[in-house]
Amino acid sequence: MRGARFGAERPLVIAGPCAVESYEQTLGVARAVQKAGADMLRGGAFKPRTSPHDFQGIGLEGLRILRAASDETGLPVVTEVMDPRLVAHVAEFADMLQVGSRNMQNYPLLAEVGRARKPVLLKRGMAASLCEWLGAAEYIAQQENFDIVLCERGIKAFACGEYSRHVLDLNVIPAVRSLSFLPVIVDPSHATGVASMVEPASRAALEFGSHGLLIEVADSAQPEPECDAAQAIDAQTLARIVRFARAPRLESMAVPTFEELHMAGYD
Amino acid sequence: MRGARFGAERPLVIAGPCAVESYEQTLGVARAVQKAGADMLRGGAFKPRTSPHDFQGIGLEGLRILRAASDETGLPVVTEVMDPRLVAHVAEFADMLQVGSRNMQNYPLLAEVGRARKPVLLKRGMAASLCEWLGAAEYIAQQENFDIVLCERGIKAFACGEYSRHVLDLNVIPAVRSLSFLPVIVDPSHATGVASMVEPASRAALEFGSHGLLIEVADSAQPEPECDAAQAIDAQTLARIVRFARAPRLESMAVPTFEELHMAGYD
Amino acid sequence: MRGARFGAERPLVIAGPCAVESYEQTLGVARAVQKAGADMLRGGAFKPRTSPHDFQGIGLEGLRILRAASDETGLPVVTEVMDPRLVAHVAEFADMLQVGSRNMQNYPLLAEVGRARKPVLLKRGMAASLCEWLGAAEYIAQQENFDIVLCERGIKAFACGEYSRHVLDLNVIPAVRSLSFLPVIVDPSHATGVASMVEPASRAALEFGSHGLLIEVADSAQPEPECDAAQAIDAQTLARIVRFARAPRLESMAVPTFEELHMAGYD
Amino acid sequence: MRGARFGAERPLVIAGPCAVESYEQTLGVARAVQKAGADMLRGGAFKPRTSPHDFQGIGLEGLRILRAASDETGLPVVTEVMDPRLVAHVAEFADMLQVGSRNMQNYPLLAEVGRARKPVLLKRGMAASLCEWLGAAEYIAQQENFDIVLCERGIKAFACGEYSRHVLDLNVIPAVRSLSFLPVIVDPSHATGVASMVEPASRAALEFGSHGLLIEVADSAQPEPECDAAQAIDAQTLARIVRFARAPRLESMAVPTFEELHMAGYD
Repeated sequence: MRGARFGAERPLVIAGPCAVESYEQTLGVARAVQKAGADMLRGGAFKPRTSPHDFQGIGLEGLRILRAASDETGLPVVTEVMDPRLVAHVAEFADMLQVGSRNMQNYPLLAEVGRARKPVLLKRGMAASLCEWLGAAEYIAQQENFDIVLCERGIKAFACGEYSRHVLDLNVIPAVRSLSFLPVIVDPSHATGVASMVEPASRAALEFGSHGLLIEVADSAQPEPECDAAQAIDAQTLARIVRFARAPRLESMAVPTFEELHMAGYD
Repeated sequence: MRGARFGAERPLVIAGPCAVESYEQTLGVARAVQKAGADMLRGGAFKPRTSPHDFQGIGLEGLRILRAASDETGLPVVTEVMDPRLVAHVAEFADMLQVGSRNMQNYPLLAEVGRARKPVLLKRGMAASLCEWLGAAEYIAQQENFDIVLCERGIKAFACGEYSRHVLDLNVIPAVRSLSFLPVIVDPSHATGVASMVEPASRAALEFGSHGLLIEVADSAQPEPECDAAQAIDAQTLARIVRFARAPRLESMAVPTFEELHMAGYD
Repeated sequence: MRGARFGAERPLVIAGPCAVESYEQTLGVARAVQKAGADMLRGGAFKPRTSPHDFQGIGLEGLRILRAASDETGLPVVTEVMDPRLVAHVAEFADMLQVGSRNMQNYPLLAEVGRARKPVLLKRGMAASLCEWLGAAEYIAQQENFDIVLCERGIKAFACGEYSRHVLDLNVIPAVRSLSFLPVIVDPSHATGVASMVEPASRAALEFGSHGLLIEVADSAQPEPECDAAQAIDAQTLARIVRFARAPRLESMAVPTFEELHMAGYD
Repeated sequence: MRGARFGAERPLVIAGPCAVESYEQTLGVARAVQKAGADMLRGGAFKPRTSPHDFQGIGLEGLRILRAASDETGLPVVTEVMDPRLVAHVAEFADMLQVGSRNMQNYPLLAEVGRARKPVLLKRGMAASLCEWLGAAEYIAQQENFDIVLCERGIKAFACGEYSRHVLDLNVIPAVRSLSFLPVIVDPSHATGVASMVEPASRAALEFGSHGLLIEVADSAQPEPECDAAQAIDAQTLARIVRFARAPRLESMAVPTFEELHMAGYD
């Protein structure tokens, strides 16, 4: 993707608005993201929401806006696709296709994005075991598309909703690196749900071996976003995160062996 | 405690064997830990184990060994106490008293360690909400002992036992810092259960705002430890972690406000 | 559906093979199920599996077999559909459309089954809150299809995989009955994953107010099923469950009020 | 215990107030419980509460009240002990000693109740695996006290606090019966936290093979209880539950084999 390569020497940062709301808003955030040094743009044209009465994204119009923002800034763009009937269409506009947590085991969709010949960002389901997550990736790979990036985004546990939206599970990062050749990144925005936690969570993820970050950013010059406003960071914070991601880092981390992982359930 | 102060400018590292097994083993690890630059020594004389048929620690003899190793190295020592009847006795030997995860809500024990006039390390229960954890600390504080350090050590969730022993919950760190004046540290050894994950987990914890670390170390010159051998790191790894803990760190992290934490449960 | 009405005076029992494998196997099980007194037939033509290398169902041929077995026995049939492009086709063969746990938040699929003008069986996602589950039903209802039956099938928690496949969450039954007019049934086969637990789980579900059951049955005269053999019960056990479901039952259960449900999080 | 025998032909019902508050309140509830047909009385003299600022029980005075209520009604009484130093004292007043969820892995306490030569009610910890629970029982049995009754009381999972206090895990009942000779009962009051769910949960537990019930009851003629008022049922509801417990029940349930339990983690 125009220079963005996951799993290479340095981590990549994908950033952008939660949802594409308008051309002005998207281009504004895209330019701020580019200026902050991010490697890729994110933005949702189709937004899966718990209730059908909540904002669902602006759809196809959003794809055109994303393409324009990507062309203006030179940042490759990733966006979510939920409907197998729209994969080919979304793939015309996007550089990378995102499969969201709710659709991690939507197998017809996985097959379709596998056939689209575009890189795929596969988010972990909210209660997916590592085995289930790698199984989902296998559905994409079965279509001979091996350009898959995994993304941890927080899991469901008893602690959810008391002080953070989900529980960020960083232990899974070295486990993925041990069991799979696929790069793995972290979404600190959904994993915490709290804007002031996004920067420390990003740094923690990088220290734990994450190959990159997927971050929601808002433009303070614009109205509050239609969704997930509480977890969006500003461009200055993003710039600090990008600098941290670029800094040389002691890559001393031994990847655990299979045997070590298997022993992790004892008393 | 002889210079070790939690919650001050720089994070502290507590390290040592899982269990005290002999004078030679404990002093060997203590010297290695001191040489690696750690601030305090840890070691269990009384070991709570899931089965009564597993090694339970060497008890009172272990306390004497710990005191000797502490005196030899100059490192203050923390050790677990499980029985309220032994608190005063353990307090004669230890510089800091540890209440383990299994006993986080053992209120007679909390009251007794509160009365002991020693600093207390209060580990989070395996399924404790933040509210329950702070409530437990309040039982200690009620005895007018406010010298309490909280320690996150991994929680129970569906993912436990597949690739790591517990799920390390770093989101709780900024939440504790927002809601309480108490310092909070992380135990990466129990939170991962995998030796090769301890270093990245330590770095992640420090980047997330942890005031310190509690780490299990083994001495490769000695026989394999009686408990938790799979999660013990060696002294060279510990030395790298200590250097990382001492390095200047961008302390940009805004502590979340109460309102931000309360909003973290939405869609 | 030819006499099967959920949420009426007596609970309904849906039973059948996990997967449709052949005409003989399906008709054999269907006849046994009918003889045992069940109200509806179940069977998967499309099987979502964690790995793409596992048996995926026999697809369209399976739909024809199900239709034939339904016509032979007079039992209405429910079967899973995963692909929005196949909903209209599946609806030609099935009396009721099932949306599986993995697809509970597959919103394009929910809209499509909503438009199909057939009753819908909506299984709970493995980590779905009640709010998320009712939100998913709302996507179907938005298409003016209100003929929706909810199905609890076990959730993910730390206990999964030690002695049962999932954790059966019966507390959700009265909560659904309090918050929604939709009938709610239980799948004891997936919620336990252990054949000998299916009968007690069925009885427990009915005593807890479940409007019915969804059960996997195998025909001992035939080869072991291709999937989930360990949780399939035989026809005699099913017959006992049906008799239990038909027996008069003290319907004393007060449905909890909203306020009672809201208070359930205290110490 | 004066005729109450767990694990025999018919299930036993233990009922009483959450906490002993006064002689009048306790005797009032005890007589109502006796009249409803329950087999044993429960009541807390020492109440472990999340916050030290909440009502902690009336302590030793409560033990005298319980003994008197037990003598008046002829119902054996079970009460919680939290402090190993008080076990012998509590054992003078109680017929059965309860170890609460918070203390399931309080090993000095377990050893002390093991030595007290009284039957023990061992509640499951909120995140205890079956292995950890049976390990805790082993600490009691090690003192040659094998008169132990296990009690499931709800576990922690993501669903806690949305519509019920905990998640009632009935799958564990047949698993305990497969792996251990110890009787196992269910506490539907804490497992649901909602009074109107207690009756259906009780019936479900009995159908799932529970050897008995532990239920909180309030006396509507008296002021609202100091703790857990929202989950206390009245005496008429208790009477219905007792009748249900006494009714003949199809004990068809095959206890799962070890192999069946081990297979429950597959796809």
